[in-house]
Amino acid sequence: MGAGESAWDRLGKHQRETQLIASIQSTLYWDQNTRMPSGGAPWRGEQLTLLATQLHARQSSSAYSDLVKEARQAWQSSDRCPHQGRNLDLIELELGRQQSLDPTLVAALARAKADGYDRWQQARSASDFNLFAPALQRLIDLRREQARQLNESRSCWETLAQPFEPDLSLDRLQALFAPLRTRLPELVAEACSRPRPRFCEWDLSEGAQQALSEELLQSWGRDPAMTCMARSPHPFSITLGPADFRITTRVVPSQPLSCFLATAHEWGHSLYEQGLPDQSHQWFAWPLGQATSMAVHESQSLFWENRIARSQSFAELWWRRFVEAGAPFTGPRDLWQAMNPMAPGPNRVESDELTYGLHILIRTDLEIALLEEGLAVKDLPGEWNRRYRELLGVTPADDAEGCLQDVHWSEGLFGYFPSYLLGHLISAQISEAMTESIGPPEEHVQRGEVSRLLAWLREHVHPLGRAVNAEQLVEKVSGRPLSTDPFLRYLEAKLDRLLKGTEPVRS
Amino acid sequence: MGAGESAWDRLGKHQRETQLIASIQSTLYWDQNTRMPSGGAPWRGEQLTLLATQLHARQSSSAYSDLVKEARQAWQSSDRCPHQGRNLDLIELELGRQQSLDPTLVAALARAKADGYDRWQQARSASDFNLFAPALQRLIDLRREQARQLNESRSCWETLAQPFEPDLSLDRLQALFAPLRTRLPELVAEACSRPRPRFCEWDLSEGAQQALSEELLQSWGRDPAMTCMARSPHPFSITLGPADFRITTRVVPSQPLSCFLATAHEWGHSLYEQGLPDQSHQWFAWPLGQATSMAVHESQSLFWENRIARSQSFAELWWRRFVEAGAPFTGPRDLWQAMNPMAPGPNRVESDELTYGLHILIRTDLEIALLEEGLAVKDLPGEWNRRYRELLGVTPADDAEGCLQDVHWSEGLFGYFPSYLLGHLISAQISEAMTESIGPPEEHVQRGEVSRLLAWLREHVHPLGRAVNAEQLVEKVSGRPLSTDPFLRYLEAKLDRLLKGTEPVRS
Repeated sequence: MGAGESAWDRLGKHQRETQLIASIQSTLYWDQNTRMPSGGAPWRGEQLTLLATQLHARQSSSAYSDLVKEARQAWQSSDRCPHQGRNLDLIELELGRQQSLDPTLVAALARAKADGYDRWQQARSASDFNLFAPALQRLIDLRREQARQLNESRSCWETLAQPFEPDLSLDRLQALFAPLRTRLPELVAEACSRPRPRFCEWDLSEGAQQALSEELLQSWGRDPAMTCMARSPHPFSITLGPADFRITTRVVPSQPLSCFLATAHEWGHSLYEQGLPDQSHQWFAWPLGQATSMAVHESQSLFWENRIARSQSFAELWWRRFVEAGAPFTGPRDLWQAMNPMAPGPNRVESDELTYGLHILIRTDLEIALLEEGLAVKDLPGEWNRRYRELLGVTPADDAEGCLQDVHWSEGLFGYFPSYLLGHLISAQISEAMTESIGPPEEHVQRGEVSRLLAWLREHVHPLGRAVNAEQLVEKVSGRPLSTDPFLRYLEAKLDRLLKGTEPVRS
Repeated sequence: MGAGESAWDRLGKHQRETQLIASIQSTLYWDQNTRMPSGGAPWRGEQLTLLATQLHARQSSSAYSDLVKEARQAWQSSDRCPHQGRNLDLIELELGRQQSLDPTLVAALARAKADGYDRWQQARSASDFNLFAPALQRLIDLRREQARQLNESRSCWETLAQPFEPDLSLDRLQALFAPLRTRLPELVAEACSRPRPRFCEWDLSEGAQQALSEELLQSWGRDPAMTCMARSPHPFSITLGPADFRITTRVVPSQPLSCFLATAHEWGHSLYEQGLPDQSHQWFAWPLGQATSMAVHESQSLFWENRIARSQSFAELWWRRFVEAGAPFTGPRDLWQAMNPMAPGPNRVESDELTYGLHILIRTDLEIALLEEGLAVKDLPGEWNRRYRELLGVTPADDAEGCLQDVHWSEGLFGYFPSYLLGHLISAQISEAMTESIGPPEEHVQRGEVSRLLAWLREHVHPLGRAVNAEQLVEKVSGRPLSTDPFLRYLEAKLDRLLKGTEPVRS
């Protein structure tokens, strides 16, 4: 360490090396999901475990703790730059969490997550929840213990949701979700009562889907020198360095729009990461340069997927291109209708803007019930199916289609699902603010000027990083507290236009 | 550490973790060359530097040195298992080398290599050797210092060649190469005097080349659960775990066979790695499970590329497939002739079996002259061109086509080139032994039974690992010391068949 090196510089050096290791981990994850032959799995598992151990040791070491303390002291006796102060707040928060956890619990959780994921995969292919139930029980027990050790002034579920949605309370969440619980089922009922032409039995070749997806990102200004596209079983977006942004997509047989929409979605995630504040050598290592919450992240992916790619003006611009690729459309409205089925089904990932929220409400209620209200694990499948019948009017054919469809709980991720729905709300509210500022996004799409939309997000949303939490971000951008109104307004208007010319079916 | 854990187990654990880190490094390298967008380079460089630093610290630490000492003591007071003894010999040899180097030199070399590579790239695109000359001089100075610090009873060049060709001496190398210096130019002259039909102006689509390459490996028994193919600017083979083998190939415009032959070549490298002894959890970490020399490695890639894919019986089996893909062949002989131009050119990588050796003789002489005989760096381009005119009858158009064509010296790799030519000799001698044992490889190819050839290599060559050095391996497999005779016999016979029906041109 140099004699003249400040406490701040020493902490920065530590953070930067942590980030180097974490990004190596991400690179291994990327490779695992895009290229690695299946035989590579056990060795890759050992590589990842080694890095996780290194990272945990670094982030809970007394040396690190000392660095943080020294940096705080130096900050207090200097000009107290608010940026550095916020960075220190966030670092101290995370350090406190790491330190309050018993290493035995950390190790037990790691094992239980690996075991849970394994058993979930088996249970799902056998469509037998009983194979997964004991592992889920174990994960719930360990997560409860984790919340207890973290000892925050929050409920168990709230504590576990913090890493995804900082500062979120259960009361606030329920207040936000309340209007959706009544209004979404009404809108679904209305959509179902007025059947529209469906495009169910068509497909596009893999090559055509790939080409359309590449064309999409080219038209959205993708820079190949900083970004990379690949295929993986489940689409994701990941950042591997300050100028190394990757996304994946997939081709699903007989779902010809899946690859295209997944590309739009993951690209939205990537654009947010690309626009985070100064991901340069100086800042990449600091918390302020990171995404502030999963909901905000999701709002950015949903903006490009739903607000842009599923919009009517987008369909007008692109429908001929889809026809060239082999789609059976006779006009822009056909592509637009195909993009927006607005019909309930048993599966969250395949659901649309209208029904998505109902999938999340069910999961949110169930995980709160499991963690805080004494719902027995064995009763989960029955409760799941009952709520699907009630809220969506569909009954899952079996456990695989029902409560085993999502990976999250198998890795002990509780408190994650609401972020998806909050993302819809945030996206809608940000879009209204954008409309007030530069006019409706759809009009820019019509004129082929999506770069204007990105520029607006780059100016108003992306650079905030973790300077604010999700609700503060929304208030800062829109001038109003987060609410469901913009989302419901948007859905109602869209549904109106989609259903135009159809007749209600009276039974 | 467990109370009952033996010194051997503790050393094994250390070796295994070293191997985990080294294979993470390899994964980053793989990604860098196959997927990473160019913007990722600076951060990737920092990741690689971090891992290199970690690895160097591990492998030169006193803790490691103690582990090795304790394992040696335990070995001496036990049944002295020869396998474990050989592992210890190899570990001690490498440890001794690491310890004898001044860390300042190690750091200076790392910087000089990075700088050398950088300047070489600039010099090559500007085709101006002077841009590279100072960096090359620096690398020569540092490598000389490295050999001095290693203080082995070998000349400077010999010392630097040891990592690639263990136990090789300069006298032995010159004795082996001597017959080639006279006979290869004679054979080239003969080939040039009898012109054959050339297939210069044809090409295959990228898709067709990719499909042919995949079909080739399928017919050679590639297991997709353990292997992976990708594209990179320069083809390579790499092993990322005990069951994770990767190769890359490339498509070169107007060289329609390049992708196919590179695939065959890299697959040969990979097959050797796949066949190394017990690359299991127990052995992957030990030196005995590794490749014994670059020449042996090259002999395995050359076997599949030259002996098989460029053989007449292979052409008989595959020519129709090439015609389907778009090649202008009217019979098997056309593919065979296209595979075997047997004509000199200025470029090593694009050269054939006949002329390849001459490229290596020139490089070997020049690097010995630079390191040991006082050839001035500034005189390198002139010397290079003079020797190309003399030995190959061609004059490079400029420095880029001349002495700047290869990457090796830019990274300070001296002593590496001869392994390529030794690989040709070893491949030929092993092929003769194979012929004596199970009949000519070409006949197996004709019957579509290449699996028999692989089985033979898997029995006699691959499992030796580092139990023997290259020359010992050849003697063990063929019953005779390594010599140039099999290689020259093979070349003469092949040339004879290739030139059949052509008339010498008398000038």
